[in-house]
Amino acid sequence: MSSSSSSSSQEAFLAIYKEIESELLASLQSLPALSTNLKQQLVDYYSVCLPYTVPGGKMTRGLTVVRGVQVLKQRELTPAEYKDAAILGWMVEWLQAVFLVADDIMDASITRRGQPCWYQVPNVTQDNAINDALILENMIYQTIRRHFKSHPSYIHILDLFIDTTFQTEVGQHIDTNGTPYADGKRAPLDLSRFTLDRYRGCVRYKTCYYSFYLSCALALAYCGYDPNESSGEDGKSGGASLYKKAEDICMILGEYFQIQDDVLDAFASPEVLGKIGTDIEDAKCSWLVCKALELVTEEQKKILEEHYGKHDPEGVQKVKDLYRELKLQELYGDYEEEQKKICDGLIAQIEPENFQELFKFLLGKIYKREK
Amino acid sequence: MSSSSSSSSQEAFLAIYKEIESELLASLQSLPALSTNLKQQLVDYYSVCLPYTVPGGKMTRGLTVVRGVQVLKQRELTPAEYKDAAILGWMVEWLQAVFLVADDIMDASITRRGQPCWYQVPNVTQDNAINDALILENMIYQTIRRHFKSHPSYIHILDLFIDTTFQTEVGQHIDTNGTPYADGKRAPLDLSRFTLDRYRGCVRYKTCYYSFYLSCALALAYCGYDPNESSGEDGKSGGASLYKKAEDICMILGEYFQIQDDVLDAFASPEVLGKIGTDIEDAKCSWLVCKALELVTEEQKKILEEHYGKHDPEGVQKVKDLYRELKLQELYGDYEEEQKKICDGLIAQIEPENFQELFKFLLGKIYKREK
Repeated sequence: MSSSSSSSSQEAFLAIYKEIESELLASLQSLPALSTNLKQQLVDYYSVCLPYTVPGGKMTRGLTVVRGVQVLKQRELTPAEYKDAAILGWMVEWLQAVFLVADDIMDASITRRGQPCWYQVPNVTQDNAINDALILENMIYQTIRRHFKSHPSYIHILDLFIDTTFQTEVGQHIDTNGTPYADGKRAPLDLSRFTLDRYRGCVRYKTCYYSFYLSCALALAYCGYDPNESSGEDGKSGGASLYKKAEDICMILGEYFQIQDDVLDAFASPEVLGKIGTDIEDAKCSWLVCKALELVTEEQKKILEEHYGKHDPEGVQKVKDLYRELKLQELYGDYEEEQKKICDGLIAQIEPENFQELFKFLLGKIYKREK
Repeated sequence: MSSSSSSSSQEAFLAIYKEIESELLASLQSLPALSTNLKQQLVDYYSVCLPYTVPGGKMTRGLTVVRGVQVLKQRELTPAEYKDAAILGWMVEWLQAVFLVADDIMDASITRRGQPCWYQVPNVTQDNAINDALILENMIYQTIRRHFKSHPSYIHILDLFIDTTFQTEVGQHIDTNGTPYADGKRAPLDLSRFTLDRYRGCVRYKTCYYSFYLSCALALAYCGYDPNESSGEDGKSGGASLYKKAEDICMILGEYFQIQDDVLDAFASPEVLGKIGTDIEDAKCSWLVCKALELVTEEQKKILEEHYGKHDPEGVQKVKDLYRELKLQELYGDYEEEQKKICDGLIAQIEPENFQELFKFLLGKIYKREK
């Protein structure tokens, strides 16, 4: 595997996806007590579902596991090690697929990664898609078992997926219930819910754990670092503090990443961003609205009360004008520099020093990103 | 624990539910980095969600685990053993809750266990309910870890839940795609899909594993029977054949149970059944329609083509009249006696003999049931 160029490392990573997909389809093909016809229907359906929902993203979460194992081992991986790390990476991408399939139904979204959301595909429909989210999740545990059942970290790897899944679902709950206005299905818009306190809790749970921490922790687990070992005699000692430091940085990186996302949603040009932001229309608990509510006069607050959460281009423009008046982009610029410094400082404290590379890689992926 | 009367054994079982619920709410209460206010919102929400969705059924699946451990141990359980068995029993009920919450959304159902379906509760809505199904599922793994991490069968218990979940989801997929007419969202009604072959595959996967086999296998696993041990020197040897025999009986019991369910749906009086059957209106792949299609003349088939899957009382009556003309209730009566004999024969072959009690208990719960 050549990891020198980004496209060849993506290709090698995608080749492992194909292997996992083949194994899963083969296991459907060999289900007992089903007619050939029924098994073929299952295989045909998931031959479409899996490539539609799992690959196709930027794959940063998955590639981070591979990178993490590489920097921890401090050498090129053997083909077997590469495959192991890539499988774990794909399991993070699989978990992402579970959340995206389910969230798109919850948010009634139309498109995802430039194509119709899975539940929008004809002959899929919401009924299948809810079940598919559950099936995709189950495939994670089937695949981890297939490849890691005899690995010394097997139970720890399972724990990481169980815990991260729960954290993300808690975040989703907070998010859903922080946007009570959505479609008028719940209570009317209540701006008092949009606090930076709720925002931080929501982002930590909904984004940071699964998008940043999980990949780093999996690399540590695969390399044998024990999360319960506070000090010891061998080279792997102090595992606990390493997980803790990774978590601390990932919480900051994740929050920074999400705040960026919110700012780009309102201010990036759709041509660069690749989609049209609708956080204002959707009454999302965005960093911008939380920050604005800390700064507004009573007069300015009325603009938000009147126009936030409505699908009306003029109102949306008024909200964006208010954001500009409050100089939120400038405030974000200051925030970004501050986060960069905090991250640099935290990263510098990490031992073994080689592990610092992983977080520099992640920070490099997001600092001043424009899409 | 007194297991002599059915109501006191239900009470003891429900007391363990309360303990599990308290532990889960306490873990929400202690989530890090969330404000007191946010944590309280989570606790308040799940203090309603859990008792609404998890207990409240007949609890046969859960009580079967307790009964299974009792018959395998051949003695009254110690309080610690009882609690362990009851926790595993509740995990089967929890899995049932996951499927019911999700299925009710998929089927657009209105009521469940005599109250509105969870997603129909105000301030819950479909968005929360999809996420809640995922959260309920995750709680199974959290709870098993909390109580069984150091149990010798921990990994095997996890495997049973992972495999059973997948089997049920495969069954749900077959079921969903065997009712293509539903709401006109998929292809129009295609009677050729309603074959006894598809029916059997669907029931095996959607019902038998999680409603019958899982509870029996958990009792075996908890008592130390090894599914990979084909023969051995100690008293626990031959575990593999015991799981296999349990599976064989459970597949027959489960199919028999589901066929009963289908017949009751059309012919039981709603007063006795406690609900109004709508399988004909909902174009369900019922045993009755599959069997009818095997027997109809071209003329009779037109009645099904015209009236099956429509919400029209007169048409539904015509379908039921056809079922009567084809003597499906009598055919079912013969089938029931046949199943009873097959089950009796299979049960008699089970060793250790005491384990036979468990299947007699299950068969007793369903033979000639009227609701």
